[in-house]
Amino acid sequence: IMTVMITSAASTQVFVNRSLTLENIRCYGFDMDYTLALYKSPDYESLGFELIRDRMVSIGYPHELLRYTYDPSFATRGLVVDTKYGNLLKVDSNGNILVCSHGFRFLKGEDVHNYYPNKFIQRGDTERFYILNTLFNLSETYLYACLVDFFTRCTRYSNLINGFQHGDLLMSFRSMFQDVRDAMDFIHDTGILKERTIKNLEKYVIRDPKLPVLLRRIKEVAKVFLATNSDYMSYKFHISSSFQPGGAKPSWHSFFDLVVVDTRKPLFFAEGTVLRQVDTNTGKLRIGTYTGDLQHGTVYSGGSSDIVCDLLDVKGKDVLYVGDHIFGDILKSKKRQGWKTFLVVPELSKELHVWEEKKNLFEELKRLDVFLAELYTKSPPAGLQVLTYRMDMSYGQMGSLLRSGARQTLFASQLMRYADLYSSTCINLLHYPFNYLFMAPPVLMPHEATTDLTVTQNDVKTNKTE
Amino acid sequence: IMTVMITSAASTQVFVNRSLTLENIRCYGFDMDYTLALYKSPDYESLGFELIRDRMVSIGYPHELLRYTYDPSFATRGLVVDTKYGNLLKVDSNGNILVCSHGFRFLKGEDVHNYYPNKFIQRGDTERFYILNTLFNLSETYLYACLVDFFTRCTRYSNLINGFQHGDLLMSFRSMFQDVRDAMDFIHDTGILKERTIKNLEKYVIRDPKLPVLLRRIKEVAKVFLATNSDYMSYKFHISSSFQPGGAKPSWHSFFDLVVVDTRKPLFFAEGTVLRQVDTNTGKLRIGTYTGDLQHGTVYSGGSSDIVCDLLDVKGKDVLYVGDHIFGDILKSKKRQGWKTFLVVPELSKELHVWEEKKNLFEELKRLDVFLAELYTKSPPAGLQVLTYRMDMSYGQMGSLLRSGARQTLFASQLMRYADLYSSTCINLLHYPFNYLFMAPPVLMPHEATTDLTVTQNDVKTNKTE
Amino acid sequence: IMTVMITSAASTQVFVNRSLTLENIRCYGFDMDYTLALYKSPDYESLGFELIRDRMVSIGYPHELLRYTYDPSFATRGLVVDTKYGNLLKVDSNGNILVCSHGFRFLKGEDVHNYYPNKFIQRGDTERFYILNTLFNLSETYLYACLVDFFTRCTRYSNLINGFQHGDLLMSFRSMFQDVRDAMDFIHDTGILKERTIKNLEKYVIRDPKLPVLLRRIKEVAKVFLATNSDYMSYKFHISSSFQPGGAKPSWHSFFDLVVVDTRKPLFFAEGTVLRQVDTNTGKLRIGTYTGDLQHGTVYSGGSSDIVCDLLDVKGKDVLYVGDHIFGDILKSKKRQGWKTFLVVPELSKELHVWEEKKNLFEELKRLDVFLAELYTKSPPAGLQVLTYRMDMSYGQMGSLLRSGARQTLFASQLMRYADLYSSTCINLLHYPFNYLFMAPPVLMPHEATTDLTVTQNDVKTNKTE
Amino acid sequence: IMTVMITSAASTQVFVNRSLTLENIRCYGFDMDYTLALYKSPDYESLGFELIRDRMVSIGYPHELLRYTYDPSFATRGLVVDTKYGNLLKVDSNGNILVCSHGFRFLKGEDVHNYYPNKFIQRGDTERFYILNTLFNLSETYLYACLVDFFTRCTRYSNLINGFQHGDLLMSFRSMFQDVRDAMDFIHDTGILKERTIKNLEKYVIRDPKLPVLLRRIKEVAKVFLATNSDYMSYKFHISSSFQPGGAKPSWHSFFDLVVVDTRKPLFFAEGTVLRQVDTNTGKLRIGTYTGDLQHGTVYSGGSSDIVCDLLDVKGKDVLYVGDHIFGDILKSKKRQGWKTFLVVPELSKELHVWEEKKNLFEELKRLDVFLAELYTKSPPAGLQVLTYRMDMSYGQMGSLLRSGARQTLFASQLMRYADLYSSTCINLLHYPFNYLFMAPPVLMPHEATTDLTVTQNDVKTNKTE
Repeated sequence: IMTVMITSAASTQVFVNRSLTLENIRCYGFDMDYTLALYKSPDYESLGFELIRDRMVSIGYPHELLRYTYDPSFATRGLVVDTKYGNLLKVDSNGNILVCSHGFRFLKGEDVHNYYPNKFIQRGDTERFYILNTLFNLSETYLYACLVDFFTRCTRYSNLINGFQHGDLLMSFRSMFQDVRDAMDFIHDTGILKERTIKNLEKYVIRDPKLPVLLRRIKEVAKVFLATNSDYMSYKFHISSSFQPGGAKPSWHSFFDLVVVDTRKPLFFAEGTVLRQVDTNTGKLRIGTYTGDLQHGTVYSGGSSDIVCDLLDVKGKDVLYVGDHIFGDILKSKKRQGWKTFLVVPELSKELHVWEEKKNLFEELKRLDVFLAELYTKSPPAGLQVLTYRMDMSYGQMGSLLRSGARQTLFASQLMRYADLYSSTCINLLHYPFNYLFMAPPVLMPHEATTDLTVTQNDVKTNKTE
Repeated sequence: IMTVMITSAASTQVFVNRSLTLENIRCYGFDMDYTLALYKSPDYESLGFELIRDRMVSIGYPHELLRYTYDPSFATRGLVVDTKYGNLLKVDSNGNILVCSHGFRFLKGEDVHNYYPNKFIQRGDTERFYILNTLFNLSETYLYACLVDFFTRCTRYSNLINGFQHGDLLMSFRSMFQDVRDAMDFIHDTGILKERTIKNLEKYVIRDPKLPVLLRRIKEVAKVFLATNSDYMSYKFHISSSFQPGGAKPSWHSFFDLVVVDTRKPLFFAEGTVLRQVDTNTGKLRIGTYTGDLQHGTVYSGGSSDIVCDLLDVKGKDVLYVGDHIFGDILKSKKRQGWKTFLVVPELSKELHVWEEKKNLFEELKRLDVFLAELYTKSPPAGLQVLTYRMDMSYGQMGSLLRSGARQTLFASQLMRYADLYSSTCINLLHYPFNYLFMAPPVLMPHEATTDLTVTQNDVKTNKTE
Repeated sequence: IMTVMITSAASTQVFVNRSLTLENIRCYGFDMDYTLALYKSPDYESLGFELIRDRMVSIGYPHELLRYTYDPSFATRGLVVDTKYGNLLKVDSNGNILVCSHGFRFLKGEDVHNYYPNKFIQRGDTERFYILNTLFNLSETYLYACLVDFFTRCTRYSNLINGFQHGDLLMSFRSMFQDVRDAMDFIHDTGILKERTIKNLEKYVIRDPKLPVLLRRIKEVAKVFLATNSDYMSYKFHISSSFQPGGAKPSWHSFFDLVVVDTRKPLFFAEGTVLRQVDTNTGKLRIGTYTGDLQHGTVYSGGSSDIVCDLLDVKGKDVLYVGDHIFGDILKSKKRQGWKTFLVVPELSKELHVWEEKKNLFEELKRLDVFLAELYTKSPPAGLQVLTYRMDMSYGQMGSLLRSGARQTLFASQLMRYADLYSSTCINLLHYPFNYLFMAPPVLMPHEATTDLTVTQNDVKTNKTE
Repeated sequence: IMTVMITSAASTQVFVNRSLTLENIRCYGFDMDYTLALYKSPDYESLGFELIRDRMVSIGYPHELLRYTYDPSFATRGLVVDTKYGNLLKVDSNGNILVCSHGFRFLKGEDVHNYYPNKFIQRGDTERFYILNTLFNLSETYLYACLVDFFTRCTRYSNLINGFQHGDLLMSFRSMFQDVRDAMDFIHDTGILKERTIKNLEKYVIRDPKLPVLLRRIKEVAKVFLATNSDYMSYKFHISSSFQPGGAKPSWHSFFDLVVVDTRKPLFFAEGTVLRQVDTNTGKLRIGTYTGDLQHGTVYSGGSSDIVCDLLDVKGKDVLYVGDHIFGDILKSKKRQGWKTFLVVPELSKELHVWEEKKNLFEELKRLDVFLAELYTKSPPAGLQVLTYRMDMSYGQMGSLLRSGARQTLFASQLMRYADLYSSTCINLLHYPFNYLFMAPPVLMPHEATTDLTVTQNDVKTNKTE
């Protein structure tokens, strides 16, 4: 019982990478998708998967693909697709490969070495490597693995280094990935995904009654805006479905001093686009640019972070921006505008749960590490690998979003660099008063952390090096 | 006594950011300056300071400058010069300003705010901001502070936002910084600095008898190369003076399988330049490119990291490169080539010493933090600031190279991201056998670190937010 | 009668900037729009204008705009929109301003000077300046002038430097241009333009029976491909409507060895995209990439100029590419691939006609020039300006596509630099045998051209400078 | 007799690409080298050649090189070095190859084809292709040809595609070119070239008594500045030696309102550097930046074109800048600043002389062209090639600086695009009054030029194509 309670407690917490005094925040900004508009996992990912899978078959991919169903235990966010070789990679902040799968087959050391002799990728090569940064990408990631799995096994196709061949037809890993991306765009652009979501709102959308409470409380102490890349109609649908569990229609525009749709983040954090007003009756853009004082409840389209700060009369350091996209929302708002940032990581509930349950494995890993450091054998023994594997498998087949054994993922390192705060949901802000001082836990550098054990460790070493 | 012993032990240690098995390293590379060629601090910085100060006066700067002498307690490495406003800045990895000085005056919050409304700089603006990354830069940093100090006080000059005015003459912060940089180039290019160093080798150069021992041992188990941006004559001078404390002339070429001068790092880690052979009798370049097998003791000029790997028949992941320059040596070799990296941080001896002695301040800071987190008062109380200040002052006027109170500097964050290993000197490698397994201490993310105290903390919060 | 005959003869000619031997061309490539698919001018531009004008009103622009109708005498291709000030500019190859209009008002010297003190723009600033390079752009250009005209006159709006203000609403020149561009995309993307064209094919589309004759003849001596940015459906519609004036359906696929749609020129001439096969029954893309031998009549999507050369087994210098887009078709194919180029300039018929009729004005201009050169008065006299104006007005309000008085436009200079051949239509190739040697007229440089008159001219000068 | 007179007259003329009214020019700017400071050709190039040749031998190149002497008939300016294959290329504005030599061997069609299958280079690849734009480059160009000639013939070396091999030594074309460049820098930086020039001023430097006359006259009507990339000492030397044919020392500072040295063109035309004052007694830079009114005769270092316009209170369009460097002086000042430009082309005297003498060959070429256009034979007959060759050889082995037969070089096309005026020397401005109106000869486009002969030509064609 206790464990559950602790976990639940942890899952309502906000975590701190850099200290931040809430009282100094004069303005709160929110992204929409996966921040204010929340989806039920894995049902929503499963819906997305089925729609793009069916789309693939309808454009000519083999019917056998219809047999695949979404498996939430396979993919995590932040995986990198190598469109040249069709692999899914989990990498650390320097591009070192932590996990590599080809379809559903996880590659061993030698196989990885054949593809990547340095066990390392230059992820700056964005023509080749594509990072699956959003939760929307999970369905795509899984479908891509299904495709590679199917063609690898299918006897009609022969396996080449850059794809699969059947007669005169080459299914290159590159073109297959392009098809998956296009299918994803298709289900968004045609509105199929939205339509299916509306048909079964209860199944796909989370309606948390605490969300209006949070926004109302924030509004008492600070300005609030919403800035989303979605268009006005998506905004209207999501906000209305998220906020109204039934009953009378509240005026949800009232929560925000400013709503900006079509923001084109990350461009929004740089030069941006022209700011237009949205006619909230028709959903169409008004012509021209509104230049008067901020009118409450006005919805805008386009613009830039500079314009938003001007309209709300705040400076970059006064803003806390809450979003789920590490690159578009967090990294860019921090790097270019110096905003304070809050990253929403829905997976964190599960990560915390597993961590609580399996922390003992990590402790064991640490003990083994110390032991190994003293033994300095050539390579990590089977024991270490078994422990890492057991720990990783507790999270899912790709392991944790944030680590692989004792090593952190690219996603984890970016989370720590760019997000001042993070939590599984922005609603957790409710548990803190608006004058709260979030204190970052002190991070010790290796030389600071290890000074305590210096004597013994050094003694051991000195003996051994003689 | 115990404290001293511990400190001394720590200062001979190699610290680990990412685990690394020495046994897998097939090739060791070394930078020269501040890696193999070591200088006595602060005498050497002091010499550099005096030479550039005198140079400034000789090109027309006021004679009053001659009164300034080098103060090693002022500057640390990694400071950023704002050439627009003449300030020295200590920043964190996101560009947030930790410390700001104008001349020798340390600016308070409001003054900083006047210059930088967001307390934040976009350090990507390399036209404006210049990062003083090497130990050679310390003399410049201090001289620049002297200049700003002098003109600020001097009644002949009036203070402007971008410099100082005297009649028709504008001394812009930008031109003054350019003059300091030119003076530094002058004492290097004319050989004055080298000449003065030679005259008093004992005073300026560290000759560690363990250095040849280290290189000889490495050579038994792996290939060794040296890659320096210096020219052949500087290489010859430094290596001979560092390696020969007197007595017979050993054949120091024999330590290296390959010596490369004029490397033009960081270009060396990208496309590089034409590889030439150096005639070690005359110091001149041979014409053409040597294409035969590697000849022991050959000295080359130019080339690239790819060529070096080819000549030595190793892959990037087999190389451990040891250097002192976080950008030119470490970041680039890691990002572009996937090399393993070892950063030499001579300041670490002092940092460790202070840390050992003042750790109690840090503990107090941590306790105060927890206390504050529960009190969530508007802003950090005087007590916190006093503690941070006291801790910083233990290191020097600009505080530690690596932190300011509980916050880490840009230098510290780059060290942790890009250096696999670090130590105060590469000689510390001697204390480890060549099959040693360096284990990185596990880094816990905030949500992992805080799960233990969740219950109580959350209780407190829940009560408070009612 | 004689004049007409001459003009008609000239209008069937192919003109030569760089000599080219047709016999060496092993492969002919064609763009589709305005190259093989021809539209009746000004009916088609008029249709486009009405559709985007109506669209503007439907998104909220004032109904008064409906009063404007398309005036083909106003705009020429190659005009530059200054989105900052709302001006239309005609410039020469160095960015010097030749003509400047604000709405329909043509600005005089001083007014131009107020906007552009140097009478010169840096057209590299593509954020601000937009070049209207295609014939499709004519409708937009005219509508933009209508907008500026309307708001300038409308008493409800006050004129600002960057737009028009009405109460709290700013109609910036920038946002108005964006709206025009979006309206143009709207009528293309929704298919409205195509639908209206189909309803009245006779009115809008030119069906030249000589086109199939030309393609059939070319096919006898060389390979032929079509490469268009349009999608397959547009290709199908245009080709079938252009080629079949009624009667039995010929197999127009048979004219081409290769048809490539969705080419994304100018990207097509660089790295390009994945090459896909189009299912000509459904119009959908086939999955995978066809790797077998070239099959006659196959239609592809995507790809790159390199792939096309590979499939057709030709080199860049063997290809003559015929298109109407100076940047996307001609400049890029020449600069990146070294293709021979043939620019289709439909306006040339009219330009030639005017030239023939008004050449005497040009002769007069030249005589006046020589006279002026000897008088060297301070500035060109009214006579010169009147002549230039009269000559320009013979072409239209913006003057010729290619010149303004004696000065050439940016379009003319690019035509001369990048197009090897040009003509009013590609059908004119029919008048030359396929082993024809196109000889470029020798271009004399000023010092070569003027050597004849040196003696007298110099005599005059020498006298005057005494 | 008559011919000579005509030529001499032409050689004192200023030629016009774009009309320009001298009366509107409020400010004249001059580059120094090859503009105000003139050298005697070929003696000066010969001196440069010998110095770099000797330098090459002193760094290890074979002594046999000393046998080579400078041949002024070989190279022209504007040649492109292909550092990959060691070829010298003469190209047109689209990168088409006009002439190609390997050492002193001129390659025929098939040999060119082997190196460049498309007979075309992408000159944007500046890593590989180096354009020899200045007259200083002539010595280098010739020496590079000597090197390739020597090693090609030398039996000790075998010929590879990328250089020459001798035992383990590879002399790559790339490294040889780097050595030539370095040798050139060496003779400039060490002052050897200047020293040797001073020793024999009469032999190497042109002292034209008309230069002070020109500058004095200009000063009466406009402002005058000098902007050179040379340092102050070079400026002092050149100006004094050019201006004083003996006798009393005139105050040559007095010719200029502003002298700027160390300009770092083309950077000078963009952001530039800090502007410093030069102490004309010591030649050293003063510290700080002078901010008062312009003082006559002051010499500055650095700065930018914007600063110069501010100091002289003129706008870009008021400036006529006179220089010899097509890229650094002319293209950049025109493109970025909209300055009027005057290109000094010392070779023009000879070009004009040859043109006058051999114009009949060109006429013959034209007649042959018309004839050929009617015959449309497969490829130009031997007659055409012989004529082109004879015409080219009249200029030198590489032909004219400006054309190859009827085709223009890259240099010629840039001259026409970017220089408003050009002449063999700026002194020719003396022959025009300062209110002169330079009229550009009207350039007819092919379709304008050919309308006269339309009827007959078209008749011929129509017959033939039946």
